[in-house]
Amino acid sequence: MAAYAVWFPAGTVFLCDVDPGVGSERPAIIVEADGRWYVGPGNSLLEILQRRAERTRCWEIDWKPERISASFHGRDLFAPVAGRLARGEPPSGRPLEDGSDRRPDWPDDLSEIVYIDHYGNAMTGLRAAMLSADARLAVAGRVLERATMFSDRPRGIAFWYENSNGLAEIAVNQGRADRELDLTIGIQLEIMS
Amino acid sequence: MAAYAVWFPAGTVFLCDVDPGVGSERPAIIVEADGRWYVGPGNSLLEILQRRAERTRCWEIDWKPERISASFHGRDLFAPVAGRLARGEPPSGRPLEDGSDRRPDWPDDLSEIVYIDHYGNAMTGLRAAMLSADARLAVAGRVLERATMFSDRPRGIAFWYENSNGLAEIAVNQGRADRELDLTIGIQLEIMS
Amino acid sequence: MAAYAVWFPAGTVFLCDVDPGVGSERPAIIVEADGRWYVGPGNSLLEILQRRAERTRCWEIDWKPERISASFHGRDLFAPVAGRLARGEPPSGRPLEDGSDRRPDWPDDLSEIVYIDHYGNAMTGLRAAMLSADARLAVAGRVLERATMFSDRPRGIAFWYENSNGLAEIAVNQGRADRELDLTIGIQLEIMS
Repeated sequence: MAAYAVWFPAGTVFLCDVDPGVGSERPAIIVEADGRWYVGPGNSLLEILQRRAERTRCWEIDWKPERISASFHGRDLFAPVAGRLARGEPPSGRPLEDGSDRRPDWPDDLSEIVYIDHYGNAMTGLRAAMLSADARLAVAGRVLERATMFSDRPRGIAFWYENSNGLAEIAVNQGRADRELDLTIGIQLEIMS
Repeated sequence: MAAYAVWFPAGTVFLCDVDPGVGSERPAIIVEADGRWYVGPGNSLLEILQRRAERTRCWEIDWKPERISASFHGRDLFAPVAGRLARGEPPSGRPLEDGSDRRPDWPDDLSEIVYIDHYGNAMTGLRAAMLSADARLAVAGRVLERATMFSDRPRGIAFWYENSNGLAEIAVNQGRADRELDLTIGIQLEIMS
Repeated sequence: MAAYAVWFPAGTVFLCDVDPGVGSERPAIIVEADGRWYVGPGNSLLEILQRRAERTRCWEIDWKPERISASFHGRDLFAPVAGRLARGEPPSGRPLEDGSDRRPDWPDDLSEIVYIDHYGNAMTGLRAAMLSADARLAVAGRVLERATMFSDRPRGIAFWYENSNGLAEIAVNQGRADRELDLTIGIQLEIMS
């Protein structure tokens, strides 16, 4: 999310909903980070984008809708709050200023496969800008070199590249990296220089 | 559909298209039910929401588009009719008042798995409001207790709960109910009190 | 794309992005064909719809965005250009008039399975209007007759029909053609009269 959000203009409102603890004690929050707005569960889903922001503020939502289901606050609570922000109303709620919602213990980058797309490309949680120009990535018993784009490499050759959201991604030109390298979500990578 | 539609405001227009008999003798219809509009095939797709409505009316569409494909009335016929309703035109067609399109023989609730979502949760055709607070559901050789939400149960434990659309749904906290209980669409459930 | 685009009104802007050579030498282009606009890579993706148009023009895009990723010109380059066309600005760029982007060697129709949909129906690259009324299609060791619609054939029987976009498509009434006939993308068909 932190990788994608920076492509959107200031004033954008994001409705964020990865919420396995829905209905438990976690608060519902509004975050403002560098002029963009986020509404979602206060379960640290927004930690990384808060950390990367130059300025960020946070509010705990105290409004309750008339009708709320036990398991879908994305629709019943976050969406109406996001709608009000989108039409220009100011955030309402209790400012959260003590940092109790933050996770300083989390790493800045995640050195593993975090997503495999429809084409078999394997996205990592590593920002390419944090890696040296000649960094190699070791994964699943292979060592991969950096390429600028797919067409830099012959058909069938595996490599890593900076994807369109700034993350290091593993791919095979005209092939499926997930099958050819046996990659799954959660596999660890090692950075080699 | 009946479970989802009630979350939308009066005046909403629904374009409905589950239509294996497209091109055969079934009529195309407009239904008004409690102020919401539905356009689709007259194949009883709308039966349950008509039955649950306090007031409902039905028209057989007699308009034909200039160009109509044999197999996609959703695009060629229902969509333009829905578009006209959405911009405020009154329904046109022959009122269907004899109930010949209705299915009084169908049950009010369907005691089986009707849908399995992306996360492996198994939705039933039973409205939770029709079940007692301590009702248990027997399925696939297991007897499941009711929970209010996912976080009520320890990780890995199967339960049923009222999902966000009011239907009984079978889930496993942080697990896949479909795989862990071997559930597939069409499996029957038994209600135990 | 050529089959779908003709259902849209003149003035529609299509953002087209099948672009394995992104970042290589292929140009970015704007095509106008019978009053519809297309923005995408100049890799012959638009060849068939240009060929079927009565009037078509082409421009090579020379604008560059401030920030452009190496691998996602759909977002960074084509989308803003399409946005400007959609709000009524004239196309800008160098007119391509020498036909160097065209592929006269390509066939008008493709006699193979080009797509398998969610229901297992197998779409071909053959326009049904190019086939005689009693044409049969031979595929995967079977010879299939033409039907007008699904309900023309008994449950479980395989046939071909003109789909809603005008292409010949192979289907099984209330069944999956891909599994029952063992069809995959790229399988060749033979037209028999």
